[in-house]
Amino acid sequence: MRPYIIINAAMSADGKLSTRERRQVRISGADDFARVDRMRADCDAILVGIGTVQSDDPSLTVKSPALREERLARSGEENPVRIVLDSKAETPVTADILRKGGGVRIIAVSEEADLEKVRALSEYADIITCGRDSVDLQHLMEELGRRGISLLMVEGGGTVIWSFLSQGLFDELNVYIGSMIIGGKTAPTLADGEGFVDDTIFPRLILDYAGQMDDGLLVRWKRRE
Amino acid sequence: MRPYIIINAAMSADGKLSTRERRQVRISGADDFARVDRMRADCDAILVGIGTVQSDDPSLTVKSPALREERLARSGEENPVRIVLDSKAETPVTADILRKGGGVRIIAVSEEADLEKVRALSEYADIITCGRDSVDLQHLMEELGRRGISLLMVEGGGTVIWSFLSQGLFDELNVYIGSMIIGGKTAPTLADGEGFVDDTIFPRLILDYAGQMDDGLLVRWKRRE
Ligand SMILES: NC(=O)c1ccc[n+]([C@@H]2O[C@H](COP(=O)([O-])OP(=O)(O)OC[C@H]3O[C@@H](n4cnc5c(N)ncnc54)[C@H](OP(=O)(O)O)[C@@H]3O)[C@@H](O)[C@H]2O)c1
Ligand SMILES: NC(=O)c1ccc[n+]([C@@H]2O[C@H](COP(=O)([O-])OP(=O)(O)OC[C@H]3O[C@@H](n4cnc5c(N)ncnc54)[C@H](OP(=O)(O)O)[C@@H]3O)[C@@H](O)[C@H]2O)c1
Repeated sequence: MRPYIIINAAMSADGKLSTRERRQVRISGADDFARVDRMRADCDAILVGIGTVQSDDPSLTVKSPALREERLARSGEENPVRIVLDSKAETPVTADILRKGGGVRIIAVSEEADLEKVRALSEYADIITCGRDSVDLQHLMEELGRRGISLLMVEGGGTVIWSFLSQGLFDELNVYIGSMIIGGKTAPTLADGEGFVDDTIFPRLILDYAGQMDDGLLVRWKRRE
Repeated sequence: MRPYIIINAAMSADGKLSTRERRQVRISGADDFARVDRMRADCDAILVGIGTVQSDDPSLTVKSPALREERLARSGEENPVRIVLDSKAETPVTADILRKGGGVRIIAVSEEADLEKVRALSEYADIITCGRDSVDLQHLMEELGRRGISLLMVEGGGTVIWSFLSQGLFDELNVYIGSMIIGGKTAPTLADGEGFVDDTIFPRLILDYAGQMDDGLLVRWKRRE
């Protein structure tokens, strides 16, 4: 059985995850930061794409010492399992996600990944190989379920979020909408990828919650069956 | 003095105005439709870009007979002034915006526009020429003010909305957020154009209202000075 999947991201009022230069920008504020940190501490695993590792080099650790303590006492690890979707095994061995904080890492690669690179990464992370040229999400989700991951948080970027949304692999979509405009027809958006053209197959959502947070808006959608 | 400017658009939960094929899709529902119709009836003019005319061929008329009556009694016209930003005077003379419903039309062109095309369009619309190769919005807004337009609604698309937002030419931004995902890295978004890279110059907004409408969310932002 696949994990319960929560997609979480912050976008500008015009739907952008960052600028056209893919440089990380501060979209939310202190309250949302604390909300996301709490969510990270509560989940079994966090997943991002190699694009996000390359542009932001995030560590994805739990930031609050109190939450880390709590997590350690509960699960034996201060951080959730950190997962990178990385078909070609391009994650640098120096990436913060591999170096910072305690806990298990998984790099999900495809059959095309260079074996030398896979070997180098396997010193820092478990490797899951699934899919021919890109990571097969359905299979990966089943494998994560088998490994005891029952709550997964997907943190981006737009290409990865699109994959989860378009395959119906999600239960909740949490979007913090910041009070600014980034603009740009090539800037990353909440859901990039190929996109749908036929409105009969758009993934449909149910509005579950909307309320002010910091000076923006937190919106929670659920998947409509 | 420039008019009070309300930007109004409907986007999917991932910030898209339509699909990558730029085909118009129904994002909102009956209540939002009525809200927009009321807003059209209340304003002095509505503006769109030539991209929207080419892909959607909208008439931009007030749809409710009661609102049309009311408007006619109040202002002598059943529809607000309808304006197209069209540097090269490419609006087809058969466009619904020129043919359907009573009321004044304005085509705003640049100095580069072909004079033959301008002449043909001038049978259906007033022509305002401003700007060398693209329409100069600051000047156009001043000219509209002089013509007695004090409340302007900007209805899109993403390139035009970007221009207004990036030049600080707006007072409110109303966004209906639909409960679906469209996706696609080339699909039109709420604010396309070039985009900002420097977060010190992002246009900043104030959250004024957010509430459920139909099965989506209506959000009103105001411009932060
Ligand atoms: N605001 C936020 O909340 C937030 C959060 C995260 C990221 N971001 C921003 O998002 C941007 C990065 O987004 P991105 O779209 O470029 O990269 P991304 O979504 O992080 O990663 C995409 C890459 O993941 C790999 N991948 C492997 N299997 C995949 C699958 N099944 N589905 C999808 N992708 C798969 C692909 O590369 P391979 O084929 O090489 O494996 C793909 O190009 C950055 O600008 C970052 O700042 C913002
Ligand atoms: N969901 C919604 O609420 C909504 C509303 C409207 C449109 N749409 C969608 O938006 C898409 C069209 O958007 P679009 O971005 O292609 O076209 P657009 O914004 O309607 O028009 C852009 C064009 O306007 C002209 N223009 C002239 N002066 C300009 C100026 N100062 N600033 C900006 N543009 C200026 C430019 O062409 P020239 O240089 O040739 O003049 C420009 O390419 C369609 O898919 C449509 O369905 C959705």
